Amino acid sequence: MNKEKSRYKITFEYDGSNFAGMQVQPHQRTVELVLTNAINKIAKKPQPPIALIASGRTDAKVHALGQVAHFDLPFSIKPEALLKALNSSLPLDVLIKSVELVSPDFHARYNAHHKRYRYRVSQGEFVDPFKRNYTGHFKYPLDVARMQQAGRDLVGEHDFTSFVASGSHVKSNVRTIYEVSVNRDEQRDEIVMEFSGSGFLYNQVRIMVAVLLEIGTGQRAVDDIPRILAGKDRQLARWTAPANGLYLVSVDYDDD
Amino acid sequence: MNKEKSRYKITFEYDGSNFAGMQVQPHQRTVELVLTNAINKIAKKPQPPIALIASGRTDAKVHALGQVAHFDLPFSIKPEALLKALNSSLPLDVLIKSVELVSPDFHARYNAHHKRYRYRVSQGEFVDPFKRNYTGHFKYPLDVARMQQAGRDLVGEHDFTSFVASGSHVKSNVRTIYEVSVNRDEQRDEIVMEFSGSGFLYNQVRIMVAVLLEIGTGQRAVDDIPRILAGKDRQLARWTAPANGLYLVSVDYDDD
Repeated sequence: MNKEKSRYKITFEYDGSNFAGMQVQPHQRTVELVLTNAINKIAKKPQPPIALIASGRTDAKVHALGQVAHFDLPFSIKPEALLKALNSSLPLDVLIKSVELVSPDFHARYNAHHKRYRYRVSQGEFVDPFKRNYTGHFKYPLDVARMQQAGRDLVGEHDFTSFVASGSHVKSNVRTIYEVSVNRDEQRDEIVMEFSGSGFLYNQVRIMVAVLLEIGTGQRAVDDIPRILAGKDRQLARWTAPANGLYLVSVDYDDD
Repeated sequence: MNKEKSRYKITFEYDGSNFAGMQVQPHQRTVELVLTNAINKIAKKPQPPIALIASGRTDAKVHALGQVAHFDLPFSIKPEALLKALNSSLPLDVLIKSVELVSPDFHARYNAHHKRYRYRVSQGEFVDPFKRNYTGHFKYPLDVARMQQAGRDLVGEHDFTSFVASGSHVKSNVRTIYEVSVNRDEQRDEIVMEFSGSGFLYNQVRIMVAVLLEIGTGQRAVDDIPRILAGKDRQLARWTAPANGLYLVSVDYDDD
């Protein structure tokens, strides 16, 4: 039986607070699980079930504003109708923002060539109850100019071995960062960092954030990043910023 | 034994999402419960336990930015030290914003003479995952000018029998509203309503919000409120806006 297949690209956001991350894990509520359930329900539960391929993983508690995935349906449906059907079926902490019919060659992971992450830091002695799930809280005063200066040392092609969680096993730890920004959001009283790059290693953004925070307080020298990069040793970067301040903002593809 | 007692007034905020409301209820996580636990822990668990008197109840899922309560300690402690001790002991969804040592005559409920509530409405076809717990979602377009005009009919001293949840048994349903405002928050793409008054009946704000929303869509006449008030019949106001968009903003006292 040779059924016609249609490949769809979806762009979606989620509040990661109540998810054990993006990827399916046994007995855990994950974004992939609720999306796969919604898609298979709309497709009338085919066997084998339809699988979802995301641009990459996000950890438990991490949020997304523009995560991307693809999947194949054994029939064709208008993107707007699919968007409506999915959003009507999904729990309220995931929202499909757009649906596109794409070429069968499109691959959400392999074709992604550029990702952007944001990290929100709230300040003050105690964390604001309304921000506890949406920012990393850091009570010490931060010098944004120092963090901006240090952020420039992350830009470019580097071996990020010092910035990858132990336990990660990838062929190469070389990645390219295109842009790092650090700004004070006066209205929200937050420090916001953004990172765009070719791709990121496991926990890389959260480790870079932690180093920039230590530089922002003056605990760490403003020119410490070249030394950390050169050392290729996870111990040099020390801690990892909490997951709940991290947002996957967007994933870019060649056709965008 | 005649111990010295010190009365403290606390002003606090909470994210109501994971609370079954303000007031203690058997087997439920309430704001009063976690506050009472923290206070009694600091006071080394006296018998009988120290009780907390709040300005009033809030329902499950309702938030507060400036709720007020009082309690007595069998000893004296500096307000700043008490604030720090309480915040260190409380769960992250409640935050004490200020602590004041007050006269033994101060009463958080009886002396409150003015309360302000805010209601946030998010728009669009589907609810934003990050707003699902923090706004009431209403997808139909709203005419803010109509809502503003109608809101003026709520101001003043009225019998609010048509705006009280059935099941409420108070001596009088007469209350005074000082101010009603309706504004579009362009940046957040929300409609924000504020109500200040001498006090509010059970569900009164949420029922007033629901009526203003119906007026905003044009379903209900812009001058319908005087008719609803005069009718003294809960059926005239129909529905109740969801709890998660409601915030107790502040409670004022004579000494403020």
